[in-house]
Amino acid sequence: MTRARELGIRIGELEPGPLDAITDVGGVRVGHETLWEGDEVRTGVTVVVPPELPCFAGADRLNGNGELTGLEWLRESGLLTSQIGLTNTYSVGVVHDAIVAVRVREGTDLWHLPVVGETYDGFLNDIQGMHVRAEHLEAALAAAADGPVEEGCVGSGTGMICHGFKGGIGTASRRAGDWTVGVLVQANHGRRSRLTIDGVPLGRELGPERIPAPGIPEGAGSIIVAAATDAPLLPHQCERLARRAALGIGRTGGAGENSSGDLALCFSTGNRALGAAEGVVGVSMLPNEAIDPLFYATIEATEEAIVNALLAAETTTGRAGRVVHRLDPDALVEVMRRYGRL
Amino acid sequence: MTRARELGIRIGELEPGPLDAITDVGGVRVGHETLWEGDEVRTGVTVVVPPELPCFAGADRLNGNGELTGLEWLRESGLLTSQIGLTNTYSVGVVHDAIVAVRVREGTDLWHLPVVGETYDGFLNDIQGMHVRAEHLEAALAAAADGPVEEGCVGSGTGMICHGFKGGIGTASRRAGDWTVGVLVQANHGRRSRLTIDGVPLGRELGPERIPAPGIPEGAGSIIVAAATDAPLLPHQCERLARRAALGIGRTGGAGENSSGDLALCFSTGNRALGAAEGVVGVSMLPNEAIDPLFYATIEATEEAIVNALLAAETTTGRAGRVVHRLDPDALVEVMRRYGRL
Amino acid sequence: MTRARELGIRIGELEPGPLDAITDVGGVRVGHETLWEGDEVRTGVTVVVPPELPCFAGADRLNGNGELTGLEWLRESGLLTSQIGLTNTYSVGVVHDAIVAVRVREGTDLWHLPVVGETYDGFLNDIQGMHVRAEHLEAALAAAADGPVEEGCVGSGTGMICHGFKGGIGTASRRAGDWTVGVLVQANHGRRSRLTIDGVPLGRELGPERIPAPGIPEGAGSIIVAAATDAPLLPHQCERLARRAALGIGRTGGAGENSSGDLALCFSTGNRALGAAEGVVGVSMLPNEAIDPLFYATIEATEEAIVNALLAAETTTGRAGRVVHRLDPDALVEVMRRYGRL
Amino acid sequence: MTRARELGIRIGELEPGPLDAITDVGGVRVGHETLWEGDEVRTGVTVVVPPELPCFAGADRLNGNGELTGLEWLRESGLLTSQIGLTNTYSVGVVHDAIVAVRVREGTDLWHLPVVGETYDGFLNDIQGMHVRAEHLEAALAAAADGPVEEGCVGSGTGMICHGFKGGIGTASRRAGDWTVGVLVQANHGRRSRLTIDGVPLGRELGPERIPAPGIPEGAGSIIVAAATDAPLLPHQCERLARRAALGIGRTGGAGENSSGDLALCFSTGNRALGAAEGVVGVSMLPNEAIDPLFYATIEATEEAIVNALLAAETTTGRAGRVVHRLDPDALVEVMRRYGRL
Repeated sequence: MTRARELGIRIGELEPGPLDAITDVGGVRVGHETLWEGDEVRTGVTVVVPPELPCFAGADRLNGNGELTGLEWLRESGLLTSQIGLTNTYSVGVVHDAIVAVRVREGTDLWHLPVVGETYDGFLNDIQGMHVRAEHLEAALAAAADGPVEEGCVGSGTGMICHGFKGGIGTASRRAGDWTVGVLVQANHGRRSRLTIDGVPLGRELGPERIPAPGIPEGAGSIIVAAATDAPLLPHQCERLARRAALGIGRTGGAGENSSGDLALCFSTGNRALGAAEGVVGVSMLPNEAIDPLFYATIEATEEAIVNALLAAETTTGRAGRVVHRLDPDALVEVMRRYGRL
Repeated sequence: MTRARELGIRIGELEPGPLDAITDVGGVRVGHETLWEGDEVRTGVTVVVPPELPCFAGADRLNGNGELTGLEWLRESGLLTSQIGLTNTYSVGVVHDAIVAVRVREGTDLWHLPVVGETYDGFLNDIQGMHVRAEHLEAALAAAADGPVEEGCVGSGTGMICHGFKGGIGTASRRAGDWTVGVLVQANHGRRSRLTIDGVPLGRELGPERIPAPGIPEGAGSIIVAAATDAPLLPHQCERLARRAALGIGRTGGAGENSSGDLALCFSTGNRALGAAEGVVGVSMLPNEAIDPLFYATIEATEEAIVNALLAAETTTGRAGRVVHRLDPDALVEVMRRYGRL
Repeated sequence: MTRARELGIRIGELEPGPLDAITDVGGVRVGHETLWEGDEVRTGVTVVVPPELPCFAGADRLNGNGELTGLEWLRESGLLTSQIGLTNTYSVGVVHDAIVAVRVREGTDLWHLPVVGETYDGFLNDIQGMHVRAEHLEAALAAAADGPVEEGCVGSGTGMICHGFKGGIGTASRRAGDWTVGVLVQANHGRRSRLTIDGVPLGRELGPERIPAPGIPEGAGSIIVAAATDAPLLPHQCERLARRAALGIGRTGGAGENSSGDLALCFSTGNRALGAAEGVVGVSMLPNEAIDPLFYATIEATEEAIVNALLAAETTTGRAGRVVHRLDPDALVEVMRRYGRL
Repeated sequence: MTRARELGIRIGELEPGPLDAITDVGGVRVGHETLWEGDEVRTGVTVVVPPELPCFAGADRLNGNGELTGLEWLRESGLLTSQIGLTNTYSVGVVHDAIVAVRVREGTDLWHLPVVGETYDGFLNDIQGMHVRAEHLEAALAAAADGPVEEGCVGSGTGMICHGFKGGIGTASRRAGDWTVGVLVQANHGRRSRLTIDGVPLGRELGPERIPAPGIPEGAGSIIVAAATDAPLLPHQCERLARRAALGIGRTGGAGENSSGDLALCFSTGNRALGAAEGVVGVSMLPNEAIDPLFYATIEATEEAIVNALLAAETTTGRAGRVVHRLDPDALVEVMRRYGRL
């Protein structure tokens, strides 16, 4: 597993946190459960778990050909009230109900509106087999941990395809003054020819004649972005950060294609104990005037998380013998050098 | 089963269609599957099926403490691409996945973003038992028919509570010039004291000393509104109609309380053959200048559908021996008369 | 000048503040400048001035056939950064620039995005004459005061028409536990036949055969709602209150007709000193779970403010000898009694 | 005046139209009125005029610290109902009222909700002097023409600053299959250090030590994007294109900074005769499945329009002797070559 920084790629102006991962935001945990069975099962579940629920959050849609359940309540209340579950398109329901069951056991509110996102892995995975079960969500939750985050063909990223290369889970972070922004993506979007890394037209240089392309409609797929920050942001400010994820997607060559579900949410860990139902609650707010570094951090971390997803993924054979090739790091380095980088 | 019009209640200025139901919009079908087992299972599934998919659609949120999956794609594409499934809060997932499976069998697109709405029936129903299964969605779809629509304690409305009375499914329609607007509600919202019917303060007059109230937090619950019209509306115009559903809710005493998921969607059957992926498609549009009667129709039909849900529902005993009383028609008539109506 | 409460009309369940006006929210001031010249000038400017700028705010659109400048920044920042100016449709620009000039003199930020709303008074007023000048905005600001608020044909309400009667400025307030919500409307919307007051179908009873109707297209016009509260609401919560104003409009018979600009904003005075650009700011938040009484308050105060606008307005003769009649209080009382009220 | 293509810069995959300008969309006209007086007046008015009003349109906000009046009605109705006026921040009002007066003279509807956008030119221009008058809007309208579009320090772009260089008006277009997308920007946004052109980090290479930077807060300012297409898009599809403008801004290094008003609108000329108020109107729709090329076109044209604004602008001396330097084309070419381009 190679990461962008290990190759010397430096996206943007800000420095990453120690792990260059969403877990650089204190208390955030990530868990994966990978389903890799026989020739046809290439899927899984990934969870992102805030240190405390509820927390302030906001969401944004670059293109809506996807599902991220729970957004009506997240936007209305300004709160994220469940762990974030990620999976494939046909397993949204089972993961949704599994989170409900977990929340019931945890003895929280009467009703539950979990946040579950998806992208489509049916090219490599037997998606119609609906192999994801409630136990897989529970296993991902049980595995949720801080520290380094496994990337690439893991958890819900197992069967994903990004810009015509093997895609999956990626993460990155940025320091923005006193604060940290961390991003995790499930990258399953984009056309090969439009891929740019740190501004270099990788996709044009590494066409299908150099690295074979999967035989799927280009631009299909989707990307889900989960962003976290320890800056004390109010809900509308979280939404502003979520909207900047689109710029990171765009800088890497994404366009929010029609068949893509490009949805982002951002939560803040900077305010705690928001669950109180009585009295007036004291909360902290970063003034809007100080928010620009967080915008830059979100853009840069999203961009790098996508690159990390590409670099970590391995060439994968799946359903019907289909093969999706990884973005070869050596080829990447060669092109980057030719364009005056590295 | 009594309906508002049978009692002589005439809400608004417009006339209903022949059935005074969402099925007055040609080709729209409704199906119920009711789960009523033992002392504790009081739930079900209801489906609303447009005559053709996809069709233009729009959505609106009065208050977001609820789930209506598929809204990101509905808003992005302007299209409703699945049957509408309604159920209880904990069964969104299973119904979601069941619709995916149905759509896969129907051989439509590669990926599926079903529209599934919910309200909470855990006071009367053993909601944690998760009794709804895929077969129930399939049964509701199989039962979907035009003609009169069963109301009250049926399908997904089986366990619902509305303004402190037994609630459930209700429907109504209005003629607006050449067009028809039909509305179906899953009514599970509202406080007793704020209920007004055709402007008469029913809730104040029929307090718990006259008709016992359930021992649940008032204002909890939710309402889902599905509106249909044969007027050729573009997606942004469908959204405008959906927004008027809130006014019908408000006129009956709803306030979009914090714990309520008050979500509305509207689809138009006035344009067909929208699924073509190639070339330019000719569509029809009702000019904005002609839309007011449809606004009035949506408001009035929503208001009457809520009243019909109340009138059709029967006093129900459910989980833990709890009883929720119906809005007694005789008491209703007595109060309406006292306020110069009927 | 008669007010709803003086006639014994009691809308809703909550009690008003001492003035039953937006100025019951401490520190809020209202100022009018009325232009009534010759036979044809019937217009003016009204301002609503929060006790401190910026303050948290949110906005909502029931129907967008109107202008309320500054909303993009209000929604983005969560802040109201200028006094609210109200005037006629053709004078938005001059009032906008006049507020800019005032803000420049006050030595605040470099750039200014004033909030200016409008409704159309061209039936009674020579609107094309563009009689409103910068000095009128300044006069309204200079006149801004706490205490009772003049209603009816005053300030920007001078030439307005509401539900086919003479309309204009109205205000009301409600106590919601420890908090107060105040509303001010510029009411220029609605059809005669749909007017309902406290649920009574006034419009049907007082048709043009009893009180002449102006010869304008029914349902034209608009309503601007400014709501204020001393509850410490975050921006997304202010937006939630603004959305409830639509329910008050709807309960009185408004439908957000196509030609109507029905726009609402809500600001909170419950957090101060938000202008600091550095460091982290401590703010207070009312939990969502405690917000329902504020929703009810907003609905009821909007409803009563519209009725107060109707009751305060006097029969007015304007451009081309046109006459718009007031809603006669005696006729109102007679009808209300017939429907079991008063 | 140099343009990106003349230097050999080829942004994206698609080809421009013959003029590489918004006027490649048939019937679209652009007019400028430049105010350049003495040492301190550096401002103006620019108009974009669709071939017919109303036309379908949609809008998007990347960051809302700016004004674009008329958006509530544009979003509600799906229609652009006035010429688009662009000017400086303090002149929104006068241009707004001037468009109202023009529309009144044109004898159109009773009320008018013009679309007027702004960015702040107070660093170079005596903005407090409010030098823009109604006659300037009228002159810009009179000058509106098809054919090549003057760029840089012209019209409303006269005093603008972009990524720390002299900015202003820029335009570009792209062919997307049978259709054309044209974009015009008023570019007054961005930080120097973040400027990237076709992926090359120009801003880092051309720091203030090579080309002096103005002494203003970085990231202040705004960008207004007007996009036009002859593809027959419905309003919600126009909105989707408008949203892609943000990706073009992001690819050039914009971030929607807090003090930036980054607003985009898109109109379609592909449907005519939409003003009819009666009967059902036949319109054409490009299916969503065919929209991706238009997304790419919007992204690429926005990116190139920003570069063209930078290249066309001349070093400008204004208020208080302040100087803002242009992006020197020779320096640009040198850097681009070093990064493997040109």
